[in-house]
Amino acid sequence: VTLTRRYRFSSSHRLHSPALSEAENARLYGKCNNPFGHGHDYVLDVTVGGPLDEATGRVVDLTALDTLIEEQVLGPFEHRNLNREVPAFAGVVPTTENLAAEIGRRLEGAWAAAFNGSGTRLQRIRIEETKRNSFALEL
Amino acid sequence: VTLTRRYRFSSSHRLHSPALSEAENARLYGKCNNPFGHGHDYVLDVTVGGPLDEATGRVVDLTALDTLIEEQVLGPFEHRNLNREVPAFAGVVPTTENLAAEIGRRLEGAWAAAFNGSGTRLQRIRIEETKRNSFALEL
Amino acid sequence: VTLTRRYRFSSSHRLHSPALSEAENARLYGKCNNPFGHGHDYVLDVTVGGPLDEATGRVVDLTALDTLIEEQVLGPFEHRNLNREVPAFAGVVPTTENLAAEIGRRLEGAWAAAFNGSGTRLQRIRIEETKRNSFALEL
Amino acid sequence: VTLTRRYRFSSSHRLHSPALSEAENARLYGKCNNPFGHGHDYVLDVTVGGPLDEATGRVVDLTALDTLIEEQVLGPFEHRNLNREVPAFAGVVPTTENLAAEIGRRLEGAWAAAFNGSGTRLQRIRIEETKRNSFALEL
Amino acid sequence: VTLTRRYRFSSSHRLHSPALSEAENARLYGKCNNPFGHGHDYVLDVTVGGPLDEATGRVVDLTALDTLIEEQVLGPFEHRNLNREVPAFAGVVPTTENLAAEIGRRLEGAWAAAFNGSGTRLQRIRIEETKRNSFALEL
Amino acid sequence: VTLTRRYRFSSSHRLHSPALSEAENARLYGKCNNPFGHGHDYVLDVTVGGPLDEATGRVVDLTALDTLIEEQVLGPFEHRNLNREVPAFAGVVPTTENLAAEIGRRLEGAWAAAFNGSGTRLQRIRIEETKRNSFALEL
Repeated sequence: VTLTRRYRFSSSHRLHSPALSEAENARLYGKCNNPFGHGHDYVLDVTVGGPLDEATGRVVDLTALDTLIEEQVLGPFEHRNLNREVPAFAGVVPTTENLAAEIGRRLEGAWAAAFNGSGTRLQRIRIEETKRNSFALEL
Repeated sequence: VTLTRRYRFSSSHRLHSPALSEAENARLYGKCNNPFGHGHDYVLDVTVGGPLDEATGRVVDLTALDTLIEEQVLGPFEHRNLNREVPAFAGVVPTTENLAAEIGRRLEGAWAAAFNGSGTRLQRIRIEETKRNSFALEL
Repeated sequence: VTLTRRYRFSSSHRLHSPALSEAENARLYGKCNNPFGHGHDYVLDVTVGGPLDEATGRVVDLTALDTLIEEQVLGPFEHRNLNREVPAFAGVVPTTENLAAEIGRRLEGAWAAAFNGSGTRLQRIRIEETKRNSFALEL
Repeated sequence: VTLTRRYRFSSSHRLHSPALSEAENARLYGKCNNPFGHGHDYVLDVTVGGPLDEATGRVVDLTALDTLIEEQVLGPFEHRNLNREVPAFAGVVPTTENLAAEIGRRLEGAWAAAFNGSGTRLQRIRIEETKRNSFALEL
Repeated sequence: VTLTRRYRFSSSHRLHSPALSEAENARLYGKCNNPFGHGHDYVLDVTVGGPLDEATGRVVDLTALDTLIEEQVLGPFEHRNLNREVPAFAGVVPTTENLAAEIGRRLEGAWAAAFNGSGTRLQRIRIEETKRNSFALEL
Repeated sequence: VTLTRRYRFSSSHRLHSPALSEAENARLYGKCNNPFGHGHDYVLDVTVGGPLDEATGRVVDLTALDTLIEEQVLGPFEHRNLNREVPAFAGVVPTTENLAAEIGRRLEGAWAAAFNGSGTRLQRIRIEETKRNSFALEL
């Protein structure tokens, strides 16, 4: 049995690649290249697997999961400008693909300490950028 | 091609583990340990695979699927108190993880008789407990 | 400009009218008359109007609204059995119609103290019982 | 018969009132006062009434409505920073209440020219800021 | 207290006005004028008001409401081609505006017999044609 | 990282198998066998994988994807009668299973030309027929 738990955060960003010319950036990202940025209400689904604890009937300690997501994702990203306030995006375009990869790295890095010895595994993260576009990463 | 078909049922439950002390139950389940119970509107998604019937263009006989789910899940669980009215939860905490496992066992046990010889396979069940938490079981 | 803010709570209840016979209760409420109860994930939408505060650009102080709803609704109802744990339903059937009326009375009674002098008005409450049925009360 | 048609746009903003001190801004708007801004995916529902055209069976010319909303709302706001790129918010806090009021003013100002003589009336606008908060304006 | 109850039905239609030329029909309805028709999954929300029955705590007898909607709407429209199988649309374009008006007439005509003497009133119907367009009729 | 992008189209169809008798068709498809057809608002989710482009931070060129889906799916199916206007369904029942298979074939056939050399892969398509039934095809 896996659990998928949903979180939400709102951030702003600007899509602009330092590796491309102004003209290429404008053509590639369109309105998303607007210099003053825009924002989204991201939905983050975190899927967790592992053995079912017989005494509690749970696959994961929800308090531990919420604490981890708060520390690694909501705290640093919620109501932030990704380009200017999140160091990982100093030289990396904050597309939702890169956002998913960054969240995956953060959760994998902190997972062992949070769920030490419990067998709980991070299996998948999924981010809805808008109703039309979502991104998934199997871990 | 797989089909995923959605069903809904409303039940009440209380999360309380006989293997734990009162204090541990209170700490672990919080408000869900409230002695008088509470309830949820569960969403059940059943995913079925198998060869496409060339004459009918269908992967599964929907009437047979609905009959099976009615007999095995909706009939026994709909508008029921899981702890007191479903024997499987007499000594097992009715977390949604355990509810998913119980539904999986029921469907697997009755599958062969319902879809005898058709090659239709049960692939996955998924239960939404609330908008925030869902649970999946690959079969 | 009005604001509508959404809250959620999960409760269990049993529909059984002390004014009716067992047979009439069974016929009228069907499965909802099941003696052990069942539950729902209620969605509560609270609509508030009033003059726009020129300095803040807001129609209502959200912290004050959340505090009021927590005290009057979420605290008493969340994860509770309405029949047995909410005194207002000791002799009143906890249909969602009566639940809406009770929430309306609680909010109206506590409104003046919470929004004293600000001109903020409670205009409407709406409760979704399930995806199919919702109930509204203009105030 | 009224028609309600849905539009979407994504913008960023910062809530900060020039009429208040830094400390008051921080207390009042919390994370929304963050200097680098954040963003939302706004949903705009526009409700239009009027006599039913007997020949066409329609209450409004959808092409004319879409053109008006594109010119007055989506063009100026989509993928923009409201504080820095929309003149109306130069000295006004871009709360969703003020955003609704600004959209109402724009649509009312341009309505007569767009629907000249057809009897089509603007009745209501509603903006969803997030899943939890929506704002409505009767016109 | 009002109740809003949701129903669904799928129908096909073609938008073509006998009062207009072929060219005008093509310009006005676009792809909806396609001669072979297309279809929608309509959502119908019926809002009902009236005095709360003290014994039952309900605003309307749901069985009576479902029977009425089945007879007047779902039976005649579900899985039907509106232009060819519903007499009301023999000479009337089956826009969702006209569909709402027809449903309103049917329900008003049959209401008194269904809810004879109970004080239950039909207040509003709302039809979602797609996620973007909905139509409402106050009664 | 995979991207899932959502598209919508409305079509009508009639479920009737030339391989079955009238009586068998009526029993098997029920109302869906109605001779004048009915329709649905299909939701199509297309899942695409591949290496992340380092310069752009994107997994797929969205403009190329939208162009492909427009040419292969929305253009031929949007506001069409599947039985009469889509050649693939001349002798094949347009169940959503067969519709998914046909869309899969079209996208696979045109994929190489659209994403020539980029490493972008089509991984999955999923079609929602209604809120209750969805169909998926792994590619």
